[in-house]
Amino acid sequence: MAKGITERAKDYSQWYIDVVKQADMAEHSPVKGCMVIKPTGYGIWEKIQQNLDRMFKETGHVNAYFPLLIPESFLKKEAEHVEGFAPECAVVTHGGGKKLEEPLVVRPTSETIIWDSYRNWISSYRDLPLLINQWANVLRWEMRTRLFLRTTEFLWQEGHTAHATHEEAEEEAYRMVQVYRRFAEEFLAMPVLVGRKTDKEKFAGALHTYCIEALMQDGKALQAGTSHHLGTNFAKAFDVQFQDRDSERKYVHATSWGVSTRLIGGMIMTHSDDSGLVIPPRLAPVPVVIVPIWRDDDQMALTLAKARHITEGWDKLFYKIDDRDQYKPGYKFNEWELKGIPIRIELGPRDVENNQVVAVRRDTGEKVTLSADGLRENLEKMLDDIQANLFQRAKDRTEASTHTVDSYDEYKERIKGGGFFRVFLNHADPKVEERLQGDTKSTIRCIPFDAPDEEGPCMITGAPCKGRVVAAQSY
Amino acid sequence: MAKGITERAKDYSQWYIDVVKQADMAEHSPVKGCMVIKPTGYGIWEKIQQNLDRMFKETGHVNAYFPLLIPESFLKKEAEHVEGFAPECAVVTHGGGKKLEEPLVVRPTSETIIWDSYRNWISSYRDLPLLINQWANVLRWEMRTRLFLRTTEFLWQEGHTAHATHEEAEEEAYRMVQVYRRFAEEFLAMPVLVGRKTDKEKFAGALHTYCIEALMQDGKALQAGTSHHLGTNFAKAFDVQFQDRDSERKYVHATSWGVSTRLIGGMIMTHSDDSGLVIPPRLAPVPVVIVPIWRDDDQMALTLAKARHITEGWDKLFYKIDDRDQYKPGYKFNEWELKGIPIRIELGPRDVENNQVVAVRRDTGEKVTLSADGLRENLEKMLDDIQANLFQRAKDRTEASTHTVDSYDEYKERIKGGGFFRVFLNHADPKVEERLQGDTKSTIRCIPFDAPDEEGPCMITGAPCKGRVVAAQSY
Repeated sequence: MAKGITERAKDYSQWYIDVVKQADMAEHSPVKGCMVIKPTGYGIWEKIQQNLDRMFKETGHVNAYFPLLIPESFLKKEAEHVEGFAPECAVVTHGGGKKLEEPLVVRPTSETIIWDSYRNWISSYRDLPLLINQWANVLRWEMRTRLFLRTTEFLWQEGHTAHATHEEAEEEAYRMVQVYRRFAEEFLAMPVLVGRKTDKEKFAGALHTYCIEALMQDGKALQAGTSHHLGTNFAKAFDVQFQDRDSERKYVHATSWGVSTRLIGGMIMTHSDDSGLVIPPRLAPVPVVIVPIWRDDDQMALTLAKARHITEGWDKLFYKIDDRDQYKPGYKFNEWELKGIPIRIELGPRDVENNQVVAVRRDTGEKVTLSADGLRENLEKMLDDIQANLFQRAKDRTEASTHTVDSYDEYKERIKGGGFFRVFLNHADPKVEERLQGDTKSTIRCIPFDAPDEEGPCMITGAPCKGRVVAAQSY
Repeated sequence: MAKGITERAKDYSQWYIDVVKQADMAEHSPVKGCMVIKPTGYGIWEKIQQNLDRMFKETGHVNAYFPLLIPESFLKKEAEHVEGFAPECAVVTHGGGKKLEEPLVVRPTSETIIWDSYRNWISSYRDLPLLINQWANVLRWEMRTRLFLRTTEFLWQEGHTAHATHEEAEEEAYRMVQVYRRFAEEFLAMPVLVGRKTDKEKFAGALHTYCIEALMQDGKALQAGTSHHLGTNFAKAFDVQFQDRDSERKYVHATSWGVSTRLIGGMIMTHSDDSGLVIPPRLAPVPVVIVPIWRDDDQMALTLAKARHITEGWDKLFYKIDDRDQYKPGYKFNEWELKGIPIRIELGPRDVENNQVVAVRRDTGEKVTLSADGLRENLEKMLDDIQANLFQRAKDRTEASTHTVDSYDEYKERIKGGGFFRVFLNHADPKVEERLQGDTKSTIRCIPFDAPDEEGPCMITGAPCKGRVVAAQSY
């Protein structure tokens, strides 16, 4: 347990706030609900961007940029969409010293402005598919905010694709939620449920929404990414048609999909502990920090020289030598632990003598003495091992916290303890979800793709249901 | 000369619009003054970002992110700053369905919101220097816009640094304008003047502003990047003090510096021609396109197989094989020429037979037959040569268009023909610049760092001046 960090067991919310603060990741800004992402936090976002962007490009997508401001009238063209987003919008009414003829909203998401452009970009089947992604900031006015998890302004990517057929759009929506799953597992080391949202929880304007859902350490679910099959809703709203191979004019089928800086919140709440942040190695801007230890100038010269010698030819993004003279080693150890650096290397005069270093793993706290020869390869193995261990630990925890329940009374009792609950619920009836939420503050998180073929009575109404859904309390 | 592109000599403005459109780089959006950056244009911005970001990191900077919205009162804390920016602001007056207590402006630049944060981040000399950069969108309400060159919303980076002394801030401001010069020369292949802005032209709130200025093909100057020494102006406005080594409390010294999507406009107007866009190889998302040529299915199989064989093991970002069957080779040649791809490779059945390809350089139109063996190395050499040739060509043009003039009458006549003019002007007297602008629509672009030690009479007032400035008409 570290100074300045409340124990998880004592107050989980405060623990989260403390970790973000002590690891120096972000802070609230003077503008209500907005955050400042500090360099330590932004460095992780850059790693998320780089890796996701590569995965998008490998699946054929290109990046573009659409305007921040959207005419209010655009938002109104898709009925469900405006209902979902209008209450959350920030509105620009004045520009260049004058009142605007039409108010402009700061984008809460970009379907409308993008489909207005697509109308001019698509005329033939030859123009399809159109596979575009945008990295951008968006604004949704929020009443209760939490750094990274829910903020009025956040950073995200939004993919917007156009297809000739329903089937191709469906494939794309499915492909992208699987890209998110793979990213969550392989980079965030965060196991996720993958499935479909109920109609009540789907995106405003979508046919259906796919999602990844992760379970945080306090037993609450976090929606970490969504991929929407929009059907022809936006094509109809913005009159986007194409001439198909058969010479007929048809409406274009759409998807959109996004993840945001919320992933950083998910990463924190999946792995961090009472000593501070824990960063999965594959998202660490610098995975290894070397702390030379000295008592006097001679030892300083000796250990620093050894640190520089060992790291000769190493990639600068792989390590950092902490050569600050104004801080003691203990202070530095604590700082790097708080900041979640995967491996800390301690290098004292005795280690120099023995041509060795002490490597300390952030995930387990384990200390290992390693030869200075072949160190780089051994550190890389250790980083792989940390990445795998973090994932396995989170997976074990998620599985241990996933319960199968059939009685609503049992559910109402056990939901208080948190976790994913595999239950029968008749979500075709919207009242069922309303009652669930009213009674238990929990919601259906998703209808998992891999739900076994089961039948049973809705735990609230008794109506027959096919397949269990997963319910949980959530962020 | 290409279809859909007006000749430069006929109508330079229309030529620029045509190149942007035909190369499919960007378009105007339904929101007045804002642009949509299409994938072809955004790909170049991504290359600019990657390379500049690396240069920033190599000079010790890290990235962070500050809020889009700034309380109106913040802007007013620095007197010159608010005067400069308030008339250009877009103002959010409503959020979440309610009128806001205090209006928020969409950032036109972020000094104020950042220095409000820095107050909490800086307390001791140990916290300095603070070297932070942000990649972001900004908004400045513009009446007359041109894609990339001047738009209401644009993408940019803004560096904001904090230092213990005037000297350190001065070094930083100078260092960063030199980073911009190097980026302009080495990546954009765009020669630039480097120097200081006159007091009239400096940034609102700066002690002084350094800049890079380039000369476009029509003889007009383009301000391509600026670096400001802000002194303690923002530290005083936001009360940012630190305890120095001598235990005294002192105000912090600041710099800020930025370049934007305007660089893409500069790139276009420096190199492109009557056949369309010309991209310097180091900024081309894909520098080589291979167009296999076929008349029937057998030839298609043959040339495509050869193209794939030749490129085995090549980096996917180095080349693209144009295997589209719905377009003829001539159409493809034209498209890649319009889009400015540095090297086009033609590969027909005869070439396959001879184990050769025909490489066509975009900069000169030169066709070279190359062996398919060792092709990658030869293409890399050719790309280096294209990059060097583009820079040299632009340098020669700029030098040929740089004139030394002493008489105002001569200046007034010759300025109509465009170019950089090395002249004596007494810019200590603000009326001199006003008169220059009123008479000739030209301005002092900069006081070059490398101006020779000369003395002479102001060409307007006759007052004695030290060193020549450079004047020009500009974008």
